[in-house]
Amino acid sequence: MNMEDCSKRTLMDYCPDIKVMDCTLRDGGLVNNFAFTDEFVKDLYQANIKAGVDYMEFGYKASKELFDPAKFGKWKFCNEEDIRAIVGENNSPLKISVMADVGRCDYKKDILPKKDSVIDLVRVATYIHQIPTAIEMIEDFKKKGYEVSVNIMAVSKVNTEDLDAGLQLLARSSVDIIYLVDSFGFFYPEQITKLAQKYVGIAEDSGKIVGIHAHNNQQLAFANTIEACRMGVSLLDATVSGMGRGAGNCFLEALLSFLKNPKYEELPIIRFIEKHMLKLKEEGAVWGYDLPYLLTGILNSHPSSAINFIKENRSDYSNLMQELMDME
Amino acid sequence: MNMEDCSKRTLMDYCPDIKVMDCTLRDGGLVNNFAFTDEFVKDLYQANIKAGVDYMEFGYKASKELFDPAKFGKWKFCNEEDIRAIVGENNSPLKISVMADVGRCDYKKDILPKKDSVIDLVRVATYIHQIPTAIEMIEDFKKKGYEVSVNIMAVSKVNTEDLDAGLQLLARSSVDIIYLVDSFGFFYPEQITKLAQKYVGIAEDSGKIVGIHAHNNQQLAFANTIEACRMGVSLLDATVSGMGRGAGNCFLEALLSFLKNPKYEELPIIRFIEKHMLKLKEEGAVWGYDLPYLLTGILNSHPSSAINFIKENRSDYSNLMQELMDME
Repeated sequence: MNMEDCSKRTLMDYCPDIKVMDCTLRDGGLVNNFAFTDEFVKDLYQANIKAGVDYMEFGYKASKELFDPAKFGKWKFCNEEDIRAIVGENNSPLKISVMADVGRCDYKKDILPKKDSVIDLVRVATYIHQIPTAIEMIEDFKKKGYEVSVNIMAVSKVNTEDLDAGLQLLARSSVDIIYLVDSFGFFYPEQITKLAQKYVGIAEDSGKIVGIHAHNNQQLAFANTIEACRMGVSLLDATVSGMGRGAGNCFLEALLSFLKNPKYEELPIIRFIEKHMLKLKEEGAVWGYDLPYLLTGILNSHPSSAINFIKENRSDYSNLMQELMDME
Repeated sequence: MNMEDCSKRTLMDYCPDIKVMDCTLRDGGLVNNFAFTDEFVKDLYQANIKAGVDYMEFGYKASKELFDPAKFGKWKFCNEEDIRAIVGENNSPLKISVMADVGRCDYKKDILPKKDSVIDLVRVATYIHQIPTAIEMIEDFKKKGYEVSVNIMAVSKVNTEDLDAGLQLLARSSVDIIYLVDSFGFFYPEQITKLAQKYVGIAEDSGKIVGIHAHNNQQLAFANTIEACRMGVSLLDATVSGMGRGAGNCFLEALLSFLKNPKYEELPIIRFIEKHMLKLKEEGAVWGYDLPYLLTGILNSHPSSAINFIKENRSDYSNLMQELMDME
C-alpha cells in the first residue's frame, strides 16, 4: 500500500502496512545467553502465529570461529536444522528472521541460499562506519533470495551529516527495510518524530519501508514505537514482557493491544507469559527498567556499565552517575 | 509568563512557567498505608529542595470521622503539627501541598485559615459528578487564602460533553490550576495531546494553568507527562521511583533529567533513592508496572482488580483479562 495513505496515522486507523516483529529470542537471548528450552521456543512460535505477529526473530547467525558454540545456547547461531526442529517447513503466515552482525558473521558460508532455508528475512546490524560492509552483506543476501533489512545501531551517537550520508548509501542499496534503532534508549518521543520523518522520507523515495527498534531505558520504548508508527514507520519490533538486553524493549503485549488491526490479538501472548515468563524470571534472568538504565539512557551510554552494576548487586546509583559522566 | 510563549515547547526550551510536583507521600502512601518514617519524610523534603522541585504533597486531609487515625499513617490526615515537625516554618522555595477528596474531607474544620498553616496549595480531587461540591470546597479554600487546584479524576470514563461542561464550571470558579488526570493509565500520548490542548485552551481563557497527573499502567506515565508539557501543561506531577497506587506514576528522576530548566537537578533524588527506596521495596511495598495493570489500563478499569490479583499472588493473567472484560 502507498505509505502516503497512512502518513498521518491516528489511533483509530487500521493500516494494513503495519507489521510486528517479535525479537524475544534474539534480544532476550542477550539476557540469558540464548538458553531457551525447546518448549519455550515452540510455544512462542505458536503464540506468535495465534497473535497475528508478522515476523519472529529466532536469534543471531553468529560466527562459530569467533564464538564457541559450547558457550552459548543454539539461538546464538540459528542452525538451519535447529530452526526446522521448531517450525518444520513453517507452513504459517509468520515469517522467520535472523540477525547477522557486521564483522561477527561468516555470512558467505552460514547464510544459505534461500531455496535451502526456512528463513525469510535476514537483518543486518551495523554501526555507521561499517555501512559499506553492511551493503556487501545486503547484496549477498538479496542475491541469495532473502528479504533483507538493516539496523543502523547507536544512532544517538551519530552526527546528522554522517547519518544522512549513511541513509543515502542504504537508499541506493537493495535493502528492503531500514531500521531506526535507539540502542541506548536515549531518545524522547519528539526526537523519534523527527528521525522517523527523516527515515520514512528517504525510504519512500527509494521504495523501501522503515522499522523501529526501541529500548526501555527511560520507559519510553512503547511510547517511541507508537510515535514512530504514527509517523509512517511500518515494521515495529517488540519482545514478550519487554525481554531484551538491559532495560529491554517495547512490550509486545502492550503493542498488540494498541494496534487496531483486527488480525492482532494479545491473549495468546498473555497466555504465553503466564506459562513461561515468570519461570524465566524466577530462574534468574534479569531485564527491564531500573535506575541504572535510566542513567545510561540519559547520558547516551552503552548499557554495559548498568548491566555490570546490577550484576554486582551495587546500589550506589550516585557513584554510577559520576562514573558515567567521567566516561563522556 | 504568558503561556503563548511556550505554546509549542520543544526539547531544548527552558520555560520558566514549568513547575514540578512531588506526590510521593500522597500517591505512594496509597501503597504502604502512609507508613513512612519521619526520616524518610525529612530526607525527601530536603532532597526536593535541593532538586529544585516546586511543590511537595504531604498526603491527604482525610476525615477522621470516616477514617480511623489508628489504622493509617499520619500522612493520611496531614495534621498541621505533623507537617511542621518536618518543615518548621518551611523557610524554603518548596511549596507544601495536601489533597482533599470531595466527600472524604471535613474541610470546613480541617483546612485551617492560611495564616495558621504552613500549607501553600490545597488540591481538590473530584469525580465529574461531584464538581458542584468541589467548587464549594475551592471557594472555601480560596477564601481561606490558599492556592487551589482541582483534579478531575477518571476522565477516561467521562464523555466529552460532560467533560466540557465540567471544565466550563471550573473555568468560572476561583480555582488556580486544573489537572488533567489519567487515573486508570488508559490514555495514549496522542489522546493526551488533544486533552491537553482542550484543558490549556479553557484554562488560558480564564487565566488559570493546567497540571497533569499520569499513571504508568501502560508504561506511558512519563511519555504522557512530557507530551502534556509540550502542549502547554505547566504543573507536572511525579513521584520518586514512580511510587504510587498500582502501576504508579511518572518517575521524578526521569522527569527532572528531561527538563532543561537549569534549576532542576536529579542527583539529590538519586541519592534519596539510594538511601530509602530499595529499603521500602525490601520491606514489602509493591508498586510499578506489571501485566495486571496493563490489562486494567487497556480495559479502562480501576486498578483495584489488579492490585488484589497481585496481593493474592495470582498469575493467571488470562483469567484476569476475562474477568475484567465481564465487568465492562
